[in-house]
Amino acid sequence: MLHRAIGIFDSGVGGLTVLKEISEQLPGEDLLYLGDTARVPYGTKSAATVQQYALESASFLVDRGVKLLVVACNTASAVALPALRGRFQLPVIGVIEPGARRAVSSRNRRIGVIGTEGTINSGRYERAIHALLPDAQVFSAACPLFVPLAEEGWAEHEVARLTAAEYLQPMIEAQIDTLVLGCTHYPLLRRTLQQVLGPQVTLVDSAAETACTVAALFREQGLARPEHGGRRSVFVTDVPTRFERVGWGFLGCELGKVEQVRIG
Amino acid sequence: MLHRAIGIFDSGVGGLTVLKEISEQLPGEDLLYLGDTARVPYGTKSAATVQQYALESASFLVDRGVKLLVVACNTASAVALPALRGRFQLPVIGVIEPGARRAVSSRNRRIGVIGTEGTINSGRYERAIHALLPDAQVFSAACPLFVPLAEEGWAEHEVARLTAAEYLQPMIEAQIDTLVLGCTHYPLLRRTLQQVLGPQVTLVDSAAETACTVAALFREQGLARPEHGGRRSVFVTDVPTRFERVGWGFLGCELGKVEQVRIG
Repeated sequence: MLHRAIGIFDSGVGGLTVLKEISEQLPGEDLLYLGDTARVPYGTKSAATVQQYALESASFLVDRGVKLLVVACNTASAVALPALRGRFQLPVIGVIEPGARRAVSSRNRRIGVIGTEGTINSGRYERAIHALLPDAQVFSAACPLFVPLAEEGWAEHEVARLTAAEYLQPMIEAQIDTLVLGCTHYPLLRRTLQQVLGPQVTLVDSAAETACTVAALFREQGLARPEHGGRRSVFVTDVPTRFERVGWGFLGCELGKVEQVRIG
Repeated sequence: MLHRAIGIFDSGVGGLTVLKEISEQLPGEDLLYLGDTARVPYGTKSAATVQQYALESASFLVDRGVKLLVVACNTASAVALPALRGRFQLPVIGVIEPGARRAVSSRNRRIGVIGTEGTINSGRYERAIHALLPDAQVFSAACPLFVPLAEEGWAEHEVARLTAAEYLQPMIEAQIDTLVLGCTHYPLLRRTLQQVLGPQVTLVDSAAETACTVAALFREQGLARPEHGGRRSVFVTDVPTRFERVGWGFLGCELGKVEQVRIG
């Protein structure tokens, strides 16, 4: 059981930011990653459709025998976690609780959350933050242009700065001191967001927080692999060409072989 | 047979620009529209995946008994037209040939084409233009941010202007006199594109040209409905909420009832 891999899935390349953090914190573990690129994005689709896609993506990884499942997609974490935990008999970690836990160290309790339409409409971050800090004021905004900007390689382009200034204006006015990057694409925009918000605002990266949560669970429950593995296998549901090209920017290093599979 | 509807499909809302033009030119015809919103967009996906999705979308309409099929999606027209014509025994009209036919009235024979990655990578516009005007110089560019900008309602925002200036710079330098809007979302950006390119550049709207092609075919082949129909039925593959909200901007009027269906 301990020799099994960690399974990680996302709608596309964004979850590679989570894979990267997990590989850094748990370098001895084998990792299986699935990007559902034939049906990407999840962020603009309905909760029912995302639940179906998430169950199919997770089934693919569970069938290959993983010891833990990481939902490296904020939208799927927001709407499909109960369905995934109901279906599979293994620990399922989403990216929302870890991000919320970090966010509540806000000093002025004015917390911003940005994400896809699906994530923001679900209200899941808001509920997770309020469960930990009932008197927090949460300011949420869907930022649909951030994903295509990150994928275009324009994360630090003037267009990204102007877009961020427009999306974040209400949060600047609300004087938030903490902003949760509630989409795995957004860490690529970190410099631009920090520039627009100013240095007094703390950015919470859900990908890094999720990796910390996984590492803590491994320590507590003795889930670590007894000897060093560290192999990585990457699967996608569409032809890998675009994923390989765009994924490089998310992982910061070579992806290795990417294999196309059919699911659903 | 003549009483049957015209079937129109797209990956999402963009094809509503084609539906709108066809309703204006052929107001007496019944129209069936399918937006494959559970798998939108097609423009960033591989040719093989788009072919499969296009065959499934078309089958849905053909099973409901249409007399003509309009592929109101540039990406699907670019990569799936031969597969569709091979599979179905009815006229299949794509948006690329009509756009190319209008583009070759360029005076200086320097023609720009913009579209999704899938459309541009296919080289279909370039080949269609060269088949009609062999010495044309064609300058192509994928503009992945235009679709999310149009869907965000930012078609005339400063962000759209700056994005267009960056994408179109090589075409301005190449002194094109004609630009093909090779994606059904792009007519929404018409004012911004014209402003960036200047009044001397003619914009070719594939949606309007396709409607002209359909109307001409109806006249030539006597396909018109004998008495007035004019009913419109709209289907989508995901929950209709977002489609209804965004679609309004594409159609310029109420969509009416939108029904969710399963395909594939």
